[in-house]
Amino acid sequence: MANSPSGESLIDRVVRVLDTFSAELTVQTAAEIGRRAGLPSATAHRIVDDLIAAGLLERDEDHRVRLGLRLWELALRGSTALRLRQAALPHMERIQSTVGQHTQLAVLERDEALFLERLSAPAAGANITRVAGRLPLHASSSGLVLLAHADLATRERVLAGPLRALSPDTVTDPARLRGLLAEIRRAGEVVAPGTVAGVSTGVAIPLRDAGRVVAALSVVLPREHAVDGALLALRTAAGGIEAALRSSGTIGG
Amino acid sequence: MANSPSGESLIDRVVRVLDTFSAELTVQTAAEIGRRAGLPSATAHRIVDDLIAAGLLERDEDHRVRLGLRLWELALRGSTALRLRQAALPHMERIQSTVGQHTQLAVLERDEALFLERLSAPAAGANITRVAGRLPLHASSSGLVLLAHADLATRERVLAGPLRALSPDTVTDPARLRGLLAEIRRAGEVVAPGTVAGVSTGVAIPLRDAGRVVAALSVVLPREHAVDGALLALRTAAGGIEAALRSSGTIGG
Repeated sequence: MANSPSGESLIDRVVRVLDTFSAELTVQTAAEIGRRAGLPSATAHRIVDDLIAAGLLERDEDHRVRLGLRLWELALRGSTALRLRQAALPHMERIQSTVGQHTQLAVLERDEALFLERLSAPAAGANITRVAGRLPLHASSSGLVLLAHADLATRERVLAGPLRALSPDTVTDPARLRGLLAEIRRAGEVVAPGTVAGVSTGVAIPLRDAGRVVAALSVVLPREHAVDGALLALRTAAGGIEAALRSSGTIGG
Repeated sequence: MANSPSGESLIDRVVRVLDTFSAELTVQTAAEIGRRAGLPSATAHRIVDDLIAAGLLERDEDHRVRLGLRLWELALRGSTALRLRQAALPHMERIQSTVGQHTQLAVLERDEALFLERLSAPAAGANITRVAGRLPLHASSSGLVLLAHADLATRERVLAGPLRALSPDTVTDPARLRGLLAEIRRAGEVVAPGTVAGVSTGVAIPLRDAGRVVAALSVVLPREHAVDGALLALRTAAGGIEAALRSSGTIGG
């Protein structure tokens, strides 16, 4: 329906428009959106106008465009991600107050780790993850947990590469990565020093719902810190979150 | 572009599809979506298929449909609402640990209070607000703060009614409401006992960014509780959030 000459649907073009916004780029002109989305100017202006009329985009006083609150509402209100995140949040706050670093919640989305939540202590160390940001599965501690418990097809697709190194410590050799994933399944957790950035260690644990791993809970701390406290806090939190999921009905769908 | 015989754009119909999902209804069949969205079955199936292809909806093992993680990502990643929420969250956690009830962050969206965040203590009292949920401006403490500081056109439109009572204590008389809004602007905060539900009191305070009120921060507590602690915690938190907004650049614009 409503395909362009290239055969792309209007919905695909809407996604390209929305995809130009990022944490670093929250406000743009319609012309900038068109350029970044690779759309003809007239098409971009028409889609932006339609999205503004529907409330999915908003215009500010300077006639620039930003993501709309209506889009935020529609995306979150009935989201299973929100239910998972609401079940996890009180337990993430407890980790936060014990460990005083960064605490994240991530899910597997199209062969990457997508972060649903991040809590950070004001004095915490370096950490590149963001809410609604992504990291490669093989590089981040959350991603490694998600990959270790992913279905076989996803695992083999990711192992087949390419496996990009984010730091000298990222495991990019498929055979070593395969061994690491087996070890994560055996141990039920992972400590990944320096695999995203040399200065940090990620510690992650799977979260299960109805027997299936649906998310990874992780702590990022400075590399020189001991990880025992973080591991203990993660294990306690995972138990609490899994109990909350059981009593709130399945979230995995 | 791509208007239906009724003149409605495809984007409007996409919004109607997404709008059928709610906290109580996170998984549906395409047929149910069509019925609830008031769309012909063939249209609904086609839009659902296109949205699934783009990742904005997802299908579960039972072929039922839920909101997609990709939609969540696109709506949040570059959102000014996310920036506001991230600035507020550490301070909301502090209120939470002091007051031990419900703490909410709300913004004005199309003449209603839209809740961006809610933190709740396990033993907290009754509270109907939800993340991505809405309440009428004139009934909720957050809404009253937002309405008191809204532009004149919004204020007059809401005062012109209808002003529905959510409880016997909701102020629905336009003249009384006008006086209450003036008092809220003067006092810089509101205590609203029972206006949403008889058993609870809402206490709310405005959050300013670049001199403009951009959100309301509130605590909901059982009606018999004293509100002094909540008011003190809200004032401290508002100062902290406004400082965080100043150092993170404007969010309102």
